[in-house]
Amino acid sequence: MNQVVDTILGHYSVRKFADKALTEETLATLIKSAQAASTSSFVQAYSIIGVSDKQIREKLSVIAGNQPYTVETGQLFIFVADLARHHAILEKEGSDVSALSTSEKWLVAVIDAALAAQNMAIAAESLDLGICYIGGIRNDVEKVAEILELPPYTMPLFGLTVGHPDTKQEIAKPRLPQELIYHQNTYQQINTVALEEYDDQIKQYYHERTAGKRVESWSEQIARGLGRENRLDLKAFLEKQHLNQK
Amino acid sequence: MNQVVDTILGHYSVRKFADKALTEETLATLIKSAQAASTSSFVQAYSIIGVSDKQIREKLSVIAGNQPYTVETGQLFIFVADLARHHAILEKEGSDVSALSTSEKWLVAVIDAALAAQNMAIAAESLDLGICYIGGIRNDVEKVAEILELPPYTMPLFGLTVGHPDTKQEIAKPRLPQELIYHQNTYQQINTVALEEYDDQIKQYYHERTAGKRVESWSEQIARGLGRENRLDLKAFLEKQHLNQK
Repeated sequence: MNQVVDTILGHYSVRKFADKALTEETLATLIKSAQAASTSSFVQAYSIIGVSDKQIREKLSVIAGNQPYTVETGQLFIFVADLARHHAILEKEGSDVSALSTSEKWLVAVIDAALAAQNMAIAAESLDLGICYIGGIRNDVEKVAEILELPPYTMPLFGLTVGHPDTKQEIAKPRLPQELIYHQNTYQQINTVALEEYDDQIKQYYHERTAGKRVESWSEQIARGLGRENRLDLKAFLEKQHLNQK
Repeated sequence: MNQVVDTILGHYSVRKFADKALTEETLATLIKSAQAASTSSFVQAYSIIGVSDKQIREKLSVIAGNQPYTVETGQLFIFVADLARHHAILEKEGSDVSALSTSEKWLVAVIDAALAAQNMAIAAESLDLGICYIGGIRNDVEKVAEILELPPYTMPLFGLTVGHPDTKQEIAKPRLPQELIYHQNTYQQINTVALEEYDDQIKQYYHERTAGKRVESWSEQIARGLGRENRLDLKAFLEKQHLNQK
């Protein structure tokens, strides 16, 4: 198609990197790319913490479930939903700060951060770097906030580890068939036949990748992963940070 | 740099399109690109509604504040945080559905949807199409859900209008200076000198783009836009949809 679409479609998550820092030039390109993303009403409601300090990476890695690829990597970025700058500005301008605690503004900050992160991910992959999102930092947001010295009106959302890949994935992981994700004009109930076919496809995919050790359909994976509550401290943390309150 | 980074850095929002539908091939590329994004634990917790029906577009446009570029466009996509498929699977597998109502799973769905959307945006721009995010659909999520026939465990997040641009923007809108977005290892408090410089830069930007009609700094824009609460029905809507409850 073109280099952009090829890069996007060629994505796979990398979980083993050379222990080699990114150059300053690459870092600058990645941050600039993140910032070029759309932002709701130009609020730019996110921050990016670039964690080069190995001790801090180690601490975050323990929280995320001891993932070595958050320590041995080119750079570990933590994306933060951030309304703290706006809070400072509103106070300075003598404006009411209560809007910052609404679900709407919380949503704006999360979406702004995610759009920026995905721009960074695509830019990184175009530079032959590999990436992996690290949702595991949400295992203990309170602790992450403490380590990164995050102020009120912020929340750490996820990490993005970016580095020189030490592995290459050969088979792309098949996504849901288009008809299960894409709806024409109005929402369509789940097509169970298409889902069953997809379940078989995913079983086959894991079978091939693990030499028969893992045989699990997508539905089984979902039932296993989403069948239990986790990270129930998020709500209290958001309250403490004055976010998502009304 | 390369075509990917050039595309990302060349982004600007388009608000006037030729009234010409996207081809099936382009649509397929955009959807495939969206689906190639990272997804938390492979849950793929989003749906995309492609609204080609002009009457439905008109209805959504009224909600979003009468934006003609949601009607006259190549395609209007609505990105939906979607745990309804997972609900159906959990019920079928006899698993507990309560985890779907946690803040954590809500966050996963929002981030999944945003990453997919940004992939679509970049892919579209690489095909010489223009894009604009439409947060305005959150002016009345209840009504949008009714129009699009959304089931429980879903929420419409934003629109993405994609089409053949009828205008071209010459000056890129300057983002916050890197030091205000990017932090080294730990969060840094706002640098007020850098902020003042940026405020001047944005004033100048608006002055040039509006031939002197609009003179507003970023801080002033933030104080004006974030100084009042809006969309206070989101919380009740999420509750009704069994999302973000604990």
